[in-house]
Amino acid sequence: MPELRKDPILGRWIIIAKERGARPTDFIIQRNATKGGFCPLCPGNESTTPPEVLAYGRPHPEPNTPGWTVRVVPNKYPALVIEGDLDKEGEGIYDKMNGIGAHEVIIESPRHDEVFTYLPLDHLVQVLYAYRDRIVDLGKDPRFRYVMVFKNFGQAAGASLEHSHSQLIALPILPRMIVSELDGALAYYRYKERCIFCDIVRQELKDEIRVVCRNDHFVTITPYAPRAPFEMWILPLGHNSSYIDMAPELYHSLAAIFSESMRRLDACLPDVPYNFVLHTAPLRSPALEHYHWHFEIMPKLTSIAGFEWGSGFYINPTPPEEAARYLREAGPAPGP
Amino acid sequence: MPELRKDPILGRWIIIAKERGARPTDFIIQRNATKGGFCPLCPGNESTTPPEVLAYGRPHPEPNTPGWTVRVVPNKYPALVIEGDLDKEGEGIYDKMNGIGAHEVIIESPRHDEVFTYLPLDHLVQVLYAYRDRIVDLGKDPRFRYVMVFKNFGQAAGASLEHSHSQLIALPILPRMIVSELDGALAYYRYKERCIFCDIVRQELKDEIRVVCRNDHFVTITPYAPRAPFEMWILPLGHNSSYIDMAPELYHSLAAIFSESMRRLDACLPDVPYNFVLHTAPLRSPALEHYHWHFEIMPKLTSIAGFEWGSGFYINPTPPEEAARYLREAGPAPGP
Repeated sequence: MPELRKDPILGRWIIIAKERGARPTDFIIQRNATKGGFCPLCPGNESTTPPEVLAYGRPHPEPNTPGWTVRVVPNKYPALVIEGDLDKEGEGIYDKMNGIGAHEVIIESPRHDEVFTYLPLDHLVQVLYAYRDRIVDLGKDPRFRYVMVFKNFGQAAGASLEHSHSQLIALPILPRMIVSELDGALAYYRYKERCIFCDIVRQELKDEIRVVCRNDHFVTITPYAPRAPFEMWILPLGHNSSYIDMAPELYHSLAAIFSESMRRLDACLPDVPYNFVLHTAPLRSPALEHYHWHFEIMPKLTSIAGFEWGSGFYINPTPPEEAARYLREAGPAPGP
Repeated sequence: MPELRKDPILGRWIIIAKERGARPTDFIIQRNATKGGFCPLCPGNESTTPPEVLAYGRPHPEPNTPGWTVRVVPNKYPALVIEGDLDKEGEGIYDKMNGIGAHEVIIESPRHDEVFTYLPLDHLVQVLYAYRDRIVDLGKDPRFRYVMVFKNFGQAAGASLEHSHSQLIALPILPRMIVSELDGALAYYRYKERCIFCDIVRQELKDEIRVVCRNDHFVTITPYAPRAPFEMWILPLGHNSSYIDMAPELYHSLAAIFSESMRRLDACLPDVPYNFVLHTAPLRSPALEHYHWHFEIMPKLTSIAGFEWGSGFYINPTPPEEAARYLREAGPAPGP
C-alpha cells in the first residue's frame, strides 16, 4: 500500500508509491523506454486495463468492450489505492497515513493517434464532461477531499503512454496548492469583498494585452506572473467556484476556447510538451464567493532547475504580454 | 531590466528575464543545442566572461588571467541585474519590482572535464569556501535579503554549460521556500523549544535506517518525506543557522561527506543528473535558535508532471529507507 508522508518542517505531503518502481535499475530501464508496440488503451484491449468506471458512446450494454468514445479506467500502477482505511500514524517526530485515494485514466478517444488539441469539439465536450462525472462520483466517497484532474502531453511533460489520455487523482487531504489558492483568494475577498479571479478577468479584458482569445463564456489569458513561458489560464467569465456546477450548455463553449487555445499554442510551438490541471473547489464544498474554477496550461519549455527547486521562485524568459501577442497573431493551427 | 512579479492569488514571485530568450523560435533553437566547442569557463578565455568577482589560487595579481583554481564571475545572461534601484510598483491589482539582484557562476575547476563528485577534497574545500565568501560579500548590499547557492548537473537538470560550475542568485526578497522553512521551524520551536532539524538529526542517528553516511561533524540522510527518489540532505550535527558562521576547521569535514555522498549516488545511479541547493539563514540575520543550515541534493529521475504542478504534492516511487540502503551498500564509487 502506498504511503502519504508529511515533511515535518514544511507540512508538505508526498506520496511514497513504491509499486511504481523503486530500485536504481528501474530508473535506468525507464530512461531507455521505447515507444510503439502494444497499447492497453486501444479498443479491443479493454481486458488488459482494470475494469472501466465510466464509458460513453458504446451502442450496447456490455462493459469493457469496444464501441466507446471516451472511457475511464483505474490506473494499473496507481499512486494511491482505493481500498482500505485512512489510518493516521506517527513515527517519532514524523507523520504518515495510508495511501488511500483513486488514480484514474481518462482515455480521450478510441483512436490511438488522436491528439487532444485536435479533438473534434463534440468529442472534446465528452472528455470535459467525463471530468465532471468522475469528480461527482468520487465526491460521494467521504474519505476523499479533492479530485485533481490533469494531463501530461509528451515525454518531457511526464507522459508514459502515447495514446491520448488525461488522468485524475482523488486525495484524502487538500493539496497544498489548492489550500494556498483558497487562502489567498479568501484574504482578498475579506479585504475587497470581491472574487480576485473576477477582478483578474475584469482587468485582463480591459487591458487586453494578456488576452489570448475569448468567447461568450470564457477567456484565455497568459497570467501576469507565469511560472512557464506561454503558460495560459482558461477562466469562466461568470463567477463559479466549482467545475461540477458549470451549466450543461457551457460545455460546448469551454471545448471551443480550450481547442482554440491549444491550437494557437501548437501554431507557436509545434508539438510542445505540456501539462494542464483543473483547479476547482474542494469536494462537497458549498458554492464559494471568493473562489473561481479554472484550467492552468503549462508548456514544458524550460527545466525546473536547482534555483526553482530551492527557492520556489520561477525564472521565466518570456513576458506574458509577448507570449499572448504571439498566440494571438499565430492564429489557431488547422491541425493534421 | 528583468522584472519581479507577484502572483496576486498565491503571493508567489517570479522573475521575467526576457534577455534570456523570449520568442518561440528561441526555444526551438535551445532544444536542439549541441555540446562541445568553445568554452567560456576554460582558462585562457577569461576575457569572454564578465570580469571576475573572486578568484583563488592565482600565483600572480593580474585578474581575469589563467592560473586560478576556483573563479567566480557574473552570469553573462543574468536572471537579475546588479545595477539599479529597487523600485516597487503596482499595475492595477498586480505588483511588480525591478529585477535587482546578482547572478554569479562559481567555476569549480580550471579543468573542463572535472566533475564535482570527483573533485579532490582540498579543491572541494575551496569551492565550499567560495560559496561562503560570496554570501558574505553580497550580504553587505542592503538591497539583498537572501543568496541562493545551487548547482545544476546534467542537461536534464537544467545545466547549459558542460564545464563544472555552481551558481548563486542574490534576491531582494526572501524566497517562499525559505520563508516556509523558517515559519515551520519557528512553529516547532515555539511548541517544543527545540530546533526541528536537531530533532531530525537525533532521530535519524538513532533509527539509522535513513542514514547514508556520517562523520564527526556532519550526517547525510534521505529525508522522511522526499520529493525525489534518492533525495539526500547534508546536515551539520551541531546546531548552526548560517552557513557563513561555520567554523573554518569544518570545511574539510563537509567536503569529505559531500564527496562521499555524491560518490555513493554515482555508484547507484551513474552520471545521474541532479540539482543541489544550500538553505541557510537570511542575510544579516542574527543566529537563530530554530533554524539549521543544510544542503539538499535532488537527483533528476522523475518528471515534474501535471499532478505535481497542480497540487504541490510529489509522487516518489522510492521509499527513502530503500534509497538509503542502496546508497550505504553501494559504497562510494572510485571515480574516473
